[in-house]
Amino acid sequence: MKQDTKQKIIEIGARIIHLKGYNHTGIQEVVKAASVPKGSFYFYFKNKEDFGLHVIDFYNNMYMGMIDPIVNNKNLLPLKRIEKMFDLFIDLFKKLDYTCGCPIGNLSQEMGDLNQALSTKLTESVELIAGVYKDILDEAKQMKEISETIDTQETAEFIVSSWHGSLIRMKIIKSIEPLKLHKRFILNTLKSSMIT
Amino acid sequence: MKQDTKQKIIEIGARIIHLKGYNHTGIQEVVKAASVPKGSFYFYFKNKEDFGLHVIDFYNNMYMGMIDPIVNNKNLLPLKRIEKMFDLFIDLFKKLDYTCGCPIGNLSQEMGDLNQALSTKLTESVELIAGVYKDILDEAKQMKEISETIDTQETAEFIVSSWHGSLIRMKIIKSIEPLKLHKRFILNTLKSSMIT
Repeated sequence: MKQDTKQKIIEIGARIIHLKGYNHTGIQEVVKAASVPKGSFYFYFKNKEDFGLHVIDFYNNMYMGMIDPIVNNKNLLPLKRIEKMFDLFIDLFKKLDYTCGCPIGNLSQEMGDLNQALSTKLTESVELIAGVYKDILDEAKQMKEISETIDTQETAEFIVSSWHGSLIRMKIIKSIEPLKLHKRFILNTLKSSMIT
Repeated sequence: MKQDTKQKIIEIGARIIHLKGYNHTGIQEVVKAASVPKGSFYFYFKNKEDFGLHVIDFYNNMYMGMIDPIVNNKNLLPLKRIEKMFDLFIDLFKKLDYTCGCPIGNLSQEMGDLNQALSTKLTESVELIAGVYKDILDEAKQMKEISETIDTQETAEFIVSSWHGSLIRMKIIKSIEPLKLHKRFILNTLKSSMIT
């Protein structure tokens, strides 16, 4: 029961932070939306930073759960899996009317200069996501879908960064085009590496 | 004299917003830092949004002024100009200890879902910056530095987006590596287009 309340605060807080940002989200607003007394927040979390760290864990688990069926679908060739991951989020952001963006990218931009504990946690998140791409790219290399000369670690990091940047543009122009462009640019670059 | 006061408020506000974000910056804080009475703020600006629009103009002018000597240096081949633009900001962010990021990218991420007037203005900014890259890429195409098959408009948009995303990663890991990776990835992709 106690875990339920804690989880409820995290889930509702995560949604509000995703939409409005960390600094713009008040604890009062979170407990009100979760219909719990304020004291209950401080029973589960030391402070807002501690709450933020839990929210990042929640985002990570949600993300890994979403991509899991694609990442582990060994019936798909590696590059097709990457394409499907892009498509999954292209469809999601269409449903969200091109709002919100990636919660990890958003928090990184907002809190990167302001909070060391959150930055460290966000770095771990980005490494986790990049790690998923790296593993698939290593497989693509083994299967000769991409060139042996590609640095899979760097390429994976670039994919995550350019995705975050494409989401920024999606948010201001309210269009899915930046995400489609990201997909085309990355996949074309990877595929053309086999020709060069 | 009046213009001086207005400009002073914009410049100081721009610096605070760059570091802390728009929502996290109070008008009170800006007028205090600028050593002007609060009434003076409302003499020059209708409200915080109006102030934000002026701040975006300020960022645009600053950016265009910074890149102008490179963009108009016709002694440099087009791709070398793009490389120099990347290097200019790589050096700048080293001096800034990997903080702040691009004010246009930051505001886009923060305000894209929250304020239509700022989003429209930010879209114009991003188009302005992408336009600079497009013109140079068109020149690179004419001079056969890059393949005729490259869509220069899309590539220019992708360069701006992936740059914004690379700055996000720079901020959390406090390292210049994401910007260097961006430079390598974009320039290699452009150069290898001539081979394929």
